[in-house]
Amino acid sequence: MAGLPRPSSGAWHPGDPAGHRQFLNFDRPIALDGGVTLDKVVVAYETWGSLDASHSNAILLCHAWTGDSHAVGPMGHGHPTAGWWEGAVGPGLAIDTDRWFVVCANVLGGCQGSTGPASPHPVDGRPYGSRFPVVTIRDMVRAQVRLADHLEIPAWHSVIGGSMGGMQVLEWAITFPHRARSIVPIATCAQATAQQIAWGAIGRRAIRMDPKWRGGDYYDADENDGPWEGLSVARMVAQVTFRSDNVFTDRFGRELADGATLHDSLELWQRFEVERYLDHHGDKLIRRFDANSYLIIGKAMDLHDVGCGRGGLVPAMSRINVPTLTIGISSDILYPSYQQRQIRDLLLSAGTPCDYVEIDSPHGHDAFLINLDQLSEPLGEFIDSIAKG
Amino acid sequence: MAGLPRPSSGAWHPGDPAGHRQFLNFDRPIALDGGVTLDKVVVAYETWGSLDASHSNAILLCHAWTGDSHAVGPMGHGHPTAGWWEGAVGPGLAIDTDRWFVVCANVLGGCQGSTGPASPHPVDGRPYGSRFPVVTIRDMVRAQVRLADHLEIPAWHSVIGGSMGGMQVLEWAITFPHRARSIVPIATCAQATAQQIAWGAIGRRAIRMDPKWRGGDYYDADENDGPWEGLSVARMVAQVTFRSDNVFTDRFGRELADGATLHDSLELWQRFEVERYLDHHGDKLIRRFDANSYLIIGKAMDLHDVGCGRGGLVPAMSRINVPTLTIGISSDILYPSYQQRQIRDLLLSAGTPCDYVEIDSPHGHDAFLINLDQLSEPLGEFIDSIAKG
Repeated sequence: MAGLPRPSSGAWHPGDPAGHRQFLNFDRPIALDGGVTLDKVVVAYETWGSLDASHSNAILLCHAWTGDSHAVGPMGHGHPTAGWWEGAVGPGLAIDTDRWFVVCANVLGGCQGSTGPASPHPVDGRPYGSRFPVVTIRDMVRAQVRLADHLEIPAWHSVIGGSMGGMQVLEWAITFPHRARSIVPIATCAQATAQQIAWGAIGRRAIRMDPKWRGGDYYDADENDGPWEGLSVARMVAQVTFRSDNVFTDRFGRELADGATLHDSLELWQRFEVERYLDHHGDKLIRRFDANSYLIIGKAMDLHDVGCGRGGLVPAMSRINVPTLTIGISSDILYPSYQQRQIRDLLLSAGTPCDYVEIDSPHGHDAFLINLDQLSEPLGEFIDSIAKG
Repeated sequence: MAGLPRPSSGAWHPGDPAGHRQFLNFDRPIALDGGVTLDKVVVAYETWGSLDASHSNAILLCHAWTGDSHAVGPMGHGHPTAGWWEGAVGPGLAIDTDRWFVVCANVLGGCQGSTGPASPHPVDGRPYGSRFPVVTIRDMVRAQVRLADHLEIPAWHSVIGGSMGGMQVLEWAITFPHRARSIVPIATCAQATAQQIAWGAIGRRAIRMDPKWRGGDYYDADENDGPWEGLSVARMVAQVTFRSDNVFTDRFGRELADGATLHDSLELWQRFEVERYLDHHGDKLIRRFDANSYLIIGKAMDLHDVGCGRGGLVPAMSRINVPTLTIGISSDILYPSYQQRQIRDLLLSAGTPCDYVEIDSPHGHDAFLINLDQLSEPLGEFIDSIAKG
């Protein structure tokens, strides 16, 4: 991979192969929480299965930070990765596409087809770059509501997502209470904590420090001259918080990279295997993601607080009035399981039915993408139970 | 503080006020694990109390990553900080200076008086910079052995330290088994884990990315043109791992910095209070520390493995033959308490007496500097018990 050209931004661009993507061009501007109005917004989305005649079998999947609309399907043809929830969605799987019409949209601010910082500004056609405004999780959901309207889906059977996806799930149920009949927030929180903000802030600072970030206006940079070092360091921070101490020990221990010897290790820049792994993940990300999208989406997560402007967590969560399944992970250090138990407790206190399931896994936060063995059964049963209820 | 000039390096320089420091100029070169020999090495150290006639009442304190010889005493007169273990060491305190002769030396590779990257290279008198070699924890201890020889201390009554200090403590007992009669490794480990290496690597990469780091040769840079951004980001990572989720939530929650309003928060670079706190710690560190020392010492910690070259942890730890008190912290996410229990278990298996005490604290790794209320009693009793034994 080291020899491949690296564009200044890994964003998908109009003209690139669309793959499985479809596009919704908004017919009117969208007003954001920050007071800015965005014009000519596009949302890229994918669907699986068929919408039934009553338009009642639709399930919305909400993706996480560096995810996109490609929840299922192979890599290639415009899709820089294989589906992020391969194995959870498909015929006969937990989210059974023989039965459900499944939709996943790239978030507003993203870089895989939906309008984001790498998109052309409608006034001059040049990338937004530093001109792109902060968006909130609520703004992301508002954009998805337009998509639901377009698809003529009055209410989702369920809105499901992990991590930042789970933040959107909660905002769907709170902001648009009649448009979801059930929700599944996974490995997520009702409000970002100071520690979560701190991790995010480190990544922001790392990107800002990279001189090739150029204040956010790097899209004209030559190939191989993008802000990858900053984005890679930001990704390294995230990647450590996505996994766990145990898994890193089991997988990497104190091995050296590149076949180095003990003597080699006494050189400042000789890498341990865990460093090679983190570099590899950074290198993968820069080829498929945009540094400004990383900043914008990260900020949205830091700003996430369902209680904001609603009198706090208790009144906000009491607006949720649909059956909820919340799922935590025993080894999650980024969104510890107390946060999902808090979601359950707030809902139960408000009289809303809520189950909590904990995935017993060493894999940390990423277990919601890995441990489908434990996730599929409760997820499938919950979706079924709503259909029967 | 923002208005004060910031030198390119926060290192102490010959000619600066010495304060309470004394200096040992090595009379011969020191050979390092990496194969390099360093000439004209200086070790800065401080002492408290009086050495008795039999030279048997000496206690060595080993400092952590950004610590230095100033374990006790006020800030000022050449000391950029107040003592890092103020309240633990002094007349009538856990380490009672009415009774014990207490010594603390700045580590080799450091920047507060001992030879490090900011020190003059003996050949040309210019700072070592990128020429400074990797040092190991064992190298640091070898330098301290020279100090013990100079002070005519055949064996320390106890060698005590937390975090990286605890790594030195273990290496003292393993590499020089007759020169310590007891040891107290606190919130430390027998070998750095992949996750610890990962955190260190992120800091390394952040410093390297800062264009003002200049490949390590930034000492000629103008005031206000040093590699502070990189060092600050590295420090941010460390600072989050030094504390805990709970403490950050209690202290900062989701407060905004600088009296910002909710509307202000919807600006990408508006800081949350936790970000201001992290910036503040970064800003403090760059005024008193050297970015290259941060790299060199961090690498030494990543390389720390008492089993290296000794057939592994079990045979290495079985070389320790003195009473040991190891102390862990319930909320430590950087050096989790299983690592100190591992030290205890390895020692007990080898027949070496070892007690384990856990500090029950929400403060995370830094609790060994904070919770003296819980640390003082077992520490004082242990030191006494060795004297009586």
